[in-house]
Amino acid sequence: MADLALGRRLMDRLEALARFSDDADGLTRLYLSPSHKQAADALAGWMREAGLDVRIDAVGTLIGRYEGTTPGMPALLVGSHIDTVRQAGKYDGALGVLAALTAVEVLSQAGERLPFAIEVVAFGDEEGVRFPSTLRGSRALAGTLDAATLDECDAAGTSVREGLIAFGANPAQLAEAAYPRGAALGFVELHIEQGPVLERMSQPVGVVTAINGARRLSVVVQGTAGHAGTSPMNMRLDSLAGAAEMILSVERIAAETGDVVATVGVIEARPGAVNVIPGETRFTIDARAPDDVARDTVVERIGAAIEGIAARRGLAVRITQTHSAPATVCDAKLIADLDDAARAAGHEPVHLPSGAGHDAMAMAALCPVAMLFVRCAGGISHHPAESISLEDADAAMRVLLHFLRTYRT
Amino acid sequence: MADLALGRRLMDRLEALARFSDDADGLTRLYLSPSHKQAADALAGWMREAGLDVRIDAVGTLIGRYEGTTPGMPALLVGSHIDTVRQAGKYDGALGVLAALTAVEVLSQAGERLPFAIEVVAFGDEEGVRFPSTLRGSRALAGTLDAATLDECDAAGTSVREGLIAFGANPAQLAEAAYPRGAALGFVELHIEQGPVLERMSQPVGVVTAINGARRLSVVVQGTAGHAGTSPMNMRLDSLAGAAEMILSVERIAAETGDVVATVGVIEARPGAVNVIPGETRFTIDARAPDDVARDTVVERIGAAIEGIAARRGLAVRITQTHSAPATVCDAKLIADLDDAARAAGHEPVHLPSGAGHDAMAMAALCPVAMLFVRCAGGISHHPAESISLEDADAAMRVLLHFLRTYRT
Repeated sequence: MADLALGRRLMDRLEALARFSDDADGLTRLYLSPSHKQAADALAGWMREAGLDVRIDAVGTLIGRYEGTTPGMPALLVGSHIDTVRQAGKYDGALGVLAALTAVEVLSQAGERLPFAIEVVAFGDEEGVRFPSTLRGSRALAGTLDAATLDECDAAGTSVREGLIAFGANPAQLAEAAYPRGAALGFVELHIEQGPVLERMSQPVGVVTAINGARRLSVVVQGTAGHAGTSPMNMRLDSLAGAAEMILSVERIAAETGDVVATVGVIEARPGAVNVIPGETRFTIDARAPDDVARDTVVERIGAAIEGIAARRGLAVRITQTHSAPATVCDAKLIADLDDAARAAGHEPVHLPSGAGHDAMAMAALCPVAMLFVRCAGGISHHPAESISLEDADAAMRVLLHFLRTYRT
Repeated sequence: MADLALGRRLMDRLEALARFSDDADGLTRLYLSPSHKQAADALAGWMREAGLDVRIDAVGTLIGRYEGTTPGMPALLVGSHIDTVRQAGKYDGALGVLAALTAVEVLSQAGERLPFAIEVVAFGDEEGVRFPSTLRGSRALAGTLDAATLDECDAAGTSVREGLIAFGANPAQLAEAAYPRGAALGFVELHIEQGPVLERMSQPVGVVTAINGARRLSVVVQGTAGHAGTSPMNMRLDSLAGAAEMILSVERIAAETGDVVATVGVIEARPGAVNVIPGETRFTIDARAPDDVARDTVVERIGAAIEGIAARRGLAVRITQTHSAPATVCDAKLIADLDDAARAAGHEPVHLPSGAGHDAMAMAALCPVAMLFVRCAGGISHHPAESISLEDADAAMRVLLHFLRTYRT
């Protein structure tokens, strides 16, 4: 159990895949770039060596199929994405794809056939760095991708369609990329946590309950600009002091509600001079929760608090919603199965929501979805310092293998 | 009493002087500009018509002397400045100069001689718009102006010295501009309030107790940047939420201390993205008070509150002082004399500090100083909307005339 051979195999593969980069200096692998093609080719080779049937769909998703006890059985899809942000880490996306490949390789080498097929999936368009919209791989598989998004262009004017042809995919076959209804048993995605929770709880893995829905608000607080020297404190309509009180209410209300997070990331006070009382202050709110009702309740309470603060201080306020996306709830049976697998591997089955978005969100339109998070150092992601330990890679592999071996529909 | 003739005379002069502008569109009269020269020439003409002896000193200050009962007596200096900001109002500075001229004109036309001389003073460099440093007129009179400041240049590369020669002044005579010690009885400056206090108190005039000292601080709050979705509320080191709490403590502590004002005018949260917890937030504090001890106590309390908030939240904080200037306390006897004059004119003698800086600050190095504030609409200044009423102009004239007629050394 403690020989870490599985973890080592996974870590070696992660290092090998990380060599495919658009930049010589650091890891950058954008959707349909030359390094994406190289990574997909290498991965296809590893899949074939493991005995999988390999195909590339209309939007460049690489899929390797491992048949069950009988050819043509419904499949459990397992995987993640192989594109990255610029100057990325080696684990975001790649971990889920290579863990799936490694698990199937173990089964294949031992001649183990399960009562269902497994398809290892490597999406190519999760980070949304190159083109305006994203999640094309998982949306195409789920049958929800609008063909018009293939005409989107990158900064250099190259369309997704042109990129796909250069990549060796056939965008004309988009309709065929949609997975046959009923043939997908579920989608399971391993991913680094990208947050600090598992590290704080000293747990290598955690089972995701839901991918947070998000709402974004823009707040404009209007007071009266004035001379910092000549306006007594009790005669001011200071938009920034009002905004400060509002920001604290955002923090307090979110903290009072389990699993909800709310963040003020941008603030601007105008005119912005050391000796002028700010007449107008603008700030943003980003609120997320695994449960849409909880999130909406928090957003409502925040709105009411902001209005109350503005009224008490004699300020005007305007709140505008700039973005809204619902939460994706993970499948209860898959969660229970992952819990059991974690327990069998000797770990407490910790539950947590995902604050970031993932391919599983789009896949939920096709089939039940689940995610297993792996602890990452300092919660850091989207950065060269992103890392996981060999021990945690090994733990994740054991959980995944146990899950696959015991999964029944 | 209610014929408002004095006020009308003053308002007419204010309109006449406002016609001298560097811009055709709006009032802009920078130090040593062509319109400053035109305004000084017009004013010199009005002074001569009123029977004053006129001179221009080395830094372009126009002075008109009205002798007392005996020629050569020590003089009470009364006036303000005739330069303006860009797109200025008609009253900031000009009011004090033209009120002094109008008062002396009244005395002169009635043949009244007082047991002291009066000098009407029109400084030219109070706003500090054209050259890096300012208050050259009052500093030269007080004998505290460093000759090196005459080598400062404006944005076009013209030095103060060159500007003075073009203006018709002789910068080589800077030493002679210093007023003979003991020959100045005091300096009295009428000025618009530039704040909302008199308007709120429904008083036309107020007597200034002190010109606020100021301290400016720069605060850098260091937390940890993080993903707005993946960091639970209780695991955050949010520099902006910490700064919000600090900003409210600045407001609260200043409000608890009479006559002290403190303002956060500039804030910046980094990296400044809607979905990132701000890792670093910077803001400024501007604290002013008519009493240096009260101001320093408030600054100390604010510093302690900020340190306490940072410690409780696990944030690092660095506070740096970027500016410090002591308060200028107005002369008790002159304050009492102005109080008496206000009462005689039928007004409650309201006391208030000056939050903005004035030539009286520099004149305090030469002689006792005092200021009479005149109510301005909405507390607005440095703007074309700056205004005072005819009634208040009249009230100010009556107070000034009574003060001059009853003043004794």
